[in-house]
Order: sequence, then structure tokens, then C-alpha cells
Amino acid sequence: MIAFVNDLFVQADKAGLRLNDLSIQRGYAVFDFFRTKNYKPLFLEDYLDRFFASGELLRLKSPKSKAEVKDIIRELIRQNDLPEAGIKLMLTGGYSPDGYTPAEPNFIVTQHEIQLTSPEKFAAGIKVITYPHQRELPTVKSTDYLMGVWLQEKLRQEQAADVLYHNNGTVTEFPRSNLFVVTASGRVVTPSENILPGITRKKILELGNGSFDCVADTVTTDELKNAREVFMTSTTKRILPVVQVDDTIIWDGKPGAVTTKISQAFLDLEDNYIQQFTW
Amino acid sequence: MIAFVNDLFVQADKAGLRLNDLSIQRGYAVFDFFRTKNYKPLFLEDYLDRFFASGELLRLKSPKSKAEVKDIIRELIRQNDLPEAGIKLMLTGGYSPDGYTPAEPNFIVTQHEIQLTSPEKFAAGIKVITYPHQRELPTVKSTDYLMGVWLQEKLRQEQAADVLYHNNGTVTEFPRSNLFVVTASGRVVTPSENILPGITRKKILELGNGSFDCVADTVTTDELKNAREVFMTSTTKRILPVVQVDDTIIWDGKPGAVTTKISQAFLDLEDNYIQQFTW
Repeated sequence: MIAFVNDLFVQADKAGLRLNDLSIQRGYAVFDFFRTKNYKPLFLEDYLDRFFASGELLRLKSPKSKAEVKDIIRELIRQNDLPEAGIKLMLTGGYSPDGYTPAEPNFIVTQHEIQLTSPEKFAAGIKVITYPHQRELPTVKSTDYLMGVWLQEKLRQEQAADVLYHNNGTVTEFPRSNLFVVTASGRVVTPSENILPGITRKKILELGNGSFDCVADTVTTDELKNAREVFMTSTTKRILPVVQVDDTIIWDGKPGAVTTKISQAFLDLEDNYIQQFTW
Repeated sequence: MIAFVNDLFVQADKAGLRLNDLSIQRGYAVFDFFRTKNYKPLFLEDYLDRFFASGELLRLKSPKSKAEVKDIIRELIRQNDLPEAGIKLMLTGGYSPDGYTPAEPNFIVTQHEIQLTSPEKFAAGIKVITYPHQRELPTVKSTDYLMGVWLQEKLRQEQAADVLYHNNGTVTEFPRSNLFVVTASGRVVTPSENILPGITRKKILELGNGSFDCVADTVTTDELKNAREVFMTSTTKRILPVVQVDDTIIWDGKPGAVTTKISQAFLDLEDNYIQQFTW
């Protein structure tokens, strides 16, 4: 697989960063991740906007403009010749002489094989557990996953697929996915604050404006456990039903009608975007 | 400068990690940092113990035993031929095929030039600001410095030398240093919980047992601002007086007698250790 590092297309498995990069020394870096379909990048503008916004919030200035990044992505897709893949953009704190002060950022683009949610996995749904945690600077897509990576052992022990963070009685997000809840009264709600604003989440909120009532608001732990349907959203998972939270089975323990309807609407939106996309 | 990476002594400025190391991808790594004096590593056993404890807490198993790490340090000091320097040990999440699951850790030792606190800087003391923050997994010396690095811009704006974290009315630690307060009643206190247990802090607590009353306990924001003396401790700073916290001048705005006495006792302890040290 080919990657792009600073100014060059290189073999990804031979590319690296020197030891004094601030991502290695202090976990200081931002990234973003989107999918390609039929060699086209899905919702590219949204991901690029978020990537540049994350960089600005951490004061990491991209050495490439949005237009230049777009050209690099196009060339990378051409060289790797994978029609469906994930593409990761990264901007690190740079080679810091003192290992603490940010320097000129390193800019990296890599391409990855991905596995989408299978129909079988969708039909089965997943079990998640909850854990008290609040990410720092939550609107920034930083590489700060200390808690998410550390909790993988607990997930194995509890045979859960993911962990949902909560904070003062409200739930927020998964380490790499957003949360949606269909309440007992039929309202579709996704947490509004202290989260990373996911692109799949954004698209569903936009879809909701047309065909179903969908809002960003507070979601309490109680609302979650009494919900009729729960699902998570992410770039690689798209929409994935959650059928158990800790020891609580959600409603009848099966993916619900609203989740299925939203999932179909999202797939249609994806197809539409890809058909109309031009470089 | 020579560094040690996994199994080899290499040129530090040419050494690096491949892009899929979990330190780069997810900020998942532990480290430790100690000083050498006259080619000897200060309080080596304490630092090695903490390094191995951090690794265990993040489930990163060092590929080298403590005895092997000690031999590598000795050889690195010999090759770089710097009598007084800093040495950094690091253990990362390793080359992760999926960029999220921990793999076999990468083990790194690097040596660095350091600047100790000068008598002039000690005499002047420093201004610090406070900021609400609690590090995750605080007893682990992880590379999670997102907040500390991000706050550097605020330090520049407020012309402060460092930031002290607080949490629910109690103060905890600086990003890279511990806090000590001499209260109005003459008690020497360092925060007991939600901190990284510093080695300099540990040595001062041990010194305190003999010659002055020194304890680990809760320190409230009020106690801090009404204190007679405040100082910070770290491996490179040793003991550094804090004479201003936000807009509050501490007592008469000068380093106090207790701080000076503890600083001298610590320097004596250092000399003693180095004189007696044998490999």
C-alpha cells in the first residue's frame, strides 16, 4: 500500500516518524478517516472540514490546503487501486526539539482495507457496556484514545463489542462511534454535547429533517436503558444496532423498525452521493 | 546522540517508528525520565520500578527485564559520553495491524541534554496559572499530554511558567511536576490522590520523615492561595519555588525558608546517592 508523508508518496510499511515527533512523545496529533466507494471519497467535504477544524483547535496548521489534500487523496486512490477502502488523514505535533513544544506538523495520508457491517452483524446487534469518562477537547478528533484502548481488555472480559462513555448521568459517545436512541415515546435523539460530531451522525440528523423526527439533545442513562431502540453510527460501521447495554436488554433485544429505516435511508444517501460525485 | 530501539543502538536522529505504532495512531504508550550525574543514573531503582508499573497498568509488557534495561542504560551512557543528561525510557502500544488493538510493544531508550534550575531561577520563583483538568489513569506515566501541550498557548498569553490542574476544589499536579504547599500553619503538604507519584516528590516525603513535618494529603484551592510557601518538584526542575498563582501573590512573593531548606536537603541526598552508586 502506498502512503503520502509530507511531500512524497512512499511505501506505507516502510514509512514512519522520527522518535521526537510530538504524536509519539506527547500524544499530540489530529486525524480523520473516511471511506471510498467505487474509487470515490464519501462525503469528502465534510471530512475535510472536520480535519481542518481539528487542526485549528490544536493549533496544528496543515502544510497543504484543502484543494491540495483533495488532489493527494485522488492520486493515492489511483496508485493503490482499491475501489472500497478507508483513508486516514493525519497532522501531528511535529519534530519537537524539546519533546514538548509543538513544531511544524507532519502531514500523513494512508489508505486501509476496511470491513463494513455485514447484514448478519446488523441483524444480531451488539452488546455494549458503559463507563464513566469524558474525552478532553471532545470536538477535536485527536489521537487521545488512552481510555478506549485501555478498556479493550474489559470488553473482552464482559464479552461486549464496545463501550459507551457517560458523565454525570448523561451518556455521550463510544470511543469511535456516536450514539442514537429511539425513546419509548418514539423520539430519535443523539447526544448534543461533549462529543465528537460524527459525519454519519450529521447525515442522519439531516435526513431526519425530512422524514422522521430526529434531534440532538441530552440523553440520560435512564432514557438509554428504557429506550425502544439504540444504535451507533460511524464511518466504517454506518448504522449498527445495540441490543444490550450492560445487563439491560433493549426492548425486545432485536434491531428495531426505526433503526432499519434510517439504515436504508443512509445507504440510499451514500449511493446518491457517490453517483453524483466528481473530482 | 545514540539511542536504543528494540534491540539495537542506533543514531537517534535517524531512528523512528513506523506509522502504525499505537503511540502515533492512538497516543498509547508509557515512558519514564531520569537524570544522570557524573555518568551515574540518579535514583535508578525508583524510576525503573515506576516505568515497569506504568507498563503493567497499560498492559504493555517490556521485552527487556529490569536487569537488561539497566545494562542498556549503562551502555548508552558509555556510548554518548555525557556526564549529566536526561534518559528517557519508552514502551509503546506496538505495530498494530488494525491501528487500535495493542501489539508487541516497541521499547526505546534515548538520551537528552537537560537544563537544571539555575540559582537565579530558583531565587526569582515562577508564576503559575490553574486550570480544571484531571488526567486519566493518573498513576500511569503515559504519553497523554493533550491538555498540557494545548495549554502552552494560554501560558504564553498569561506570561505564566506552568499550569496547575485542579478538580472539584482540590489541586492535584502540574503536567510534568508535583506540587508542595507550606500552609499558613507550617505544615508541608503534597496532594495525595489523582496524581502521578513523582520520584522527587517521593524523596522529599522520605526526607520529611526525619527533619520536618511533610505529608501527602488533600490540598484545596484555598489552602494553596493562602499558603506561606509553594513549590513544584520534578526530575529536571528538582525544587522550584512558585511565587504567584493566577492573580494571587504567595505570601511575600519570595521563595521561603522551608523551600530553601528542603531544596538543600534534596541536593545533599542526590550527592549521597551518586557517591554511593555502583552498577
